[in-house]
Amino acid sequence: MKIHNFSAGPCILPQEVLNEAAESIKNFNQLGLSLIEISHRSKDFVNVMEEARSLVKELLNLPDRFDVLFLQGGASLGFYTAAINLLPEGGRASYIDSGTWANKAVKEAKLLGQIDVIGSSKADNYKAIPAFDIPHEDSAYLHYTSNNTIFGTQFQGTPEVEVPLVADMSSDIFSRTFDPEPFHLIYAGAQKNMGPAGTVMYAFDRTQIGKTNRTIPSYLDLAVHASKDSMFNTPPVFSVYVTMLTLKWMKSLGGIGVIQERNEAKSKLIYEEIDRNSLFEGHAELSSRSHMNATFQLIDETHATRFDALCKEAGISGLKGHRSVGGYRASMYNALPIESVQVLVDVMKHLEQKQ
Amino acid sequence: MKIHNFSAGPCILPQEVLNEAAESIKNFNQLGLSLIEISHRSKDFVNVMEEARSLVKELLNLPDRFDVLFLQGGASLGFYTAAINLLPEGGRASYIDSGTWANKAVKEAKLLGQIDVIGSSKADNYKAIPAFDIPHEDSAYLHYTSNNTIFGTQFQGTPEVEVPLVADMSSDIFSRTFDPEPFHLIYAGAQKNMGPAGTVMYAFDRTQIGKTNRTIPSYLDLAVHASKDSMFNTPPVFSVYVTMLTLKWMKSLGGIGVIQERNEAKSKLIYEEIDRNSLFEGHAELSSRSHMNATFQLIDETHATRFDALCKEAGISGLKGHRSVGGYRASMYNALPIESVQVLVDVMKHLEQKQ
Repeated sequence: MKIHNFSAGPCILPQEVLNEAAESIKNFNQLGLSLIEISHRSKDFVNVMEEARSLVKELLNLPDRFDVLFLQGGASLGFYTAAINLLPEGGRASYIDSGTWANKAVKEAKLLGQIDVIGSSKADNYKAIPAFDIPHEDSAYLHYTSNNTIFGTQFQGTPEVEVPLVADMSSDIFSRTFDPEPFHLIYAGAQKNMGPAGTVMYAFDRTQIGKTNRTIPSYLDLAVHASKDSMFNTPPVFSVYVTMLTLKWMKSLGGIGVIQERNEAKSKLIYEEIDRNSLFEGHAELSSRSHMNATFQLIDETHATRFDALCKEAGISGLKGHRSVGGYRASMYNALPIESVQVLVDVMKHLEQKQ
Repeated sequence: MKIHNFSAGPCILPQEVLNEAAESIKNFNQLGLSLIEISHRSKDFVNVMEEARSLVKELLNLPDRFDVLFLQGGASLGFYTAAINLLPEGGRASYIDSGTWANKAVKEAKLLGQIDVIGSSKADNYKAIPAFDIPHEDSAYLHYTSNNTIFGTQFQGTPEVEVPLVADMSSDIFSRTFDPEPFHLIYAGAQKNMGPAGTVMYAFDRTQIGKTNRTIPSYLDLAVHASKDSMFNTPPVFSVYVTMLTLKWMKSLGGIGVIQERNEAKSKLIYEEIDRNSLFEGHAELSSRSHMNATFQLIDETHATRFDALCKEAGISGLKGHRSVGGYRASMYNALPIESVQVLVDVMKHLEQKQ
């Protein structure tokens, strides 16, 4: 049976990428060796790393002043890494608290300086992207989380402020186009649109690094990694390789503009059904809805057993909502075909007709 | 042609592990999904993580007070993580500087307190494990690097001192038995004996954590990770899975005692040839020789072209020495069969006979 993978992350990857990844474990580049048993300093792997870094620059249309790194530790280490590289000793920065992960970013940054939370939707269980105040003019940057997986909310565009931007784009990077000009740093765990778990991408303006007057542990210092072309130490070889394959796949589709259209068609399909179907209601506020994660619930919970059974029968996987929201969450990352969304919509219609 | 993989790391892994890893990328546990596109919170992956942690405890015979974690960032982040978790604010610790990585550990720890380097072989290009002074009685711990990949040196046993031990065992963990009693922390990057690059194992005495009076960023706090069963954030799924398979393979062979015998037979074979063969000489001092990495060179460099050609012809891969030592390095990690060492020895004999 074909599985329709709505998992929130780690999540669906393109089938051709999975096939090539499996082959690389057996025999990489016809070397007679596995990808994971060759030196990361070998030409074969250095080429992988360089291609991955260069594809990020190309797909995101990054200005020349940007460097791209693939490091470890996930966005969770990124919260601290972002602040230690960009928040000067004794300085301040502004943060928008739009969800669980945004809140964690605030917590880690507070270890390093004054953090102004200029907007928060926490009191309303993060049902919407909050309105926010103008960042203090001395803010080193404004940090925001572009998409909130758990709650199904997403910034509809780039915040327009007078200070530089830093964004955790873990759950919507490469899903839509944006202008990188206002950013000092974009970081994103790979395990949604980019690749498997185990690496995090940092894209940053190299002219803005090294100004905090802090002593930075080597692994957390973006300048150290940049000076070694993202090979300061052994990189997460497999995760970087599969990320490179996924980036190539995105390019082969026609780039992020084309992918954005596909994603918008998928989210339109599911949201129209959520709003039309008398048995369901959406969780996130309309103006904050995410194109990546649609959160919704049954108005009458007694239909749950039957809906869950129908979903299972149709091969729908990973639809359970996060425990802090409940209900359902359809995650529709780049690699999810619209056919899978249609299957879910059909099940929802079927449930309504046969009640 | 069969390749004999002497790579220093990432390096050879057992063929059955590679086969199972490749299969998991296509279809994991017959789920109809890839290992790398399922939730890390799914029962299927939680079982992998728990089995990996439990196999480490079993194979290393760790006392109950030990916790095991699989994190990211490699030993390079481990240098700082070790110190921030175990070196109290205002405290001191002792370090042995036995190689490039040991020296990097010193550098990162110095960011956090007084570091006494009680022994160093740096002046002699790390040809031997250095003699060392008795650690100061106030030392929170003695840190050492059990095996030095680049120079081919290895501590012949556990240092006997009055203070607790912390060891970076990245390049010889699971290669020989040792008593874990004197340790507060053992850490090791996976990419030699344990699995693919992308994860680092921490085994530590949980009763010794949380005493430094420091503010620790969440990702660097071993107690935070332990409280979440090594799932504080998305773990490096693939690296942990392949590590689990490799740990199972070690157990199936009969455990670390059996593996140690195999490793000793391999290193005996190569060192006897290095010492016997009139064309070669060893790099490391005899008393410090490593069972994992044998470093050696041609006495007369003019034989290099022919030796390299013979090696290539025989399918020998990854034998080039590190740039800071030159010559050759035969890395003989757990998964390398003695047959591969025999092939190398035969090539060395052949070179001598046909000169």
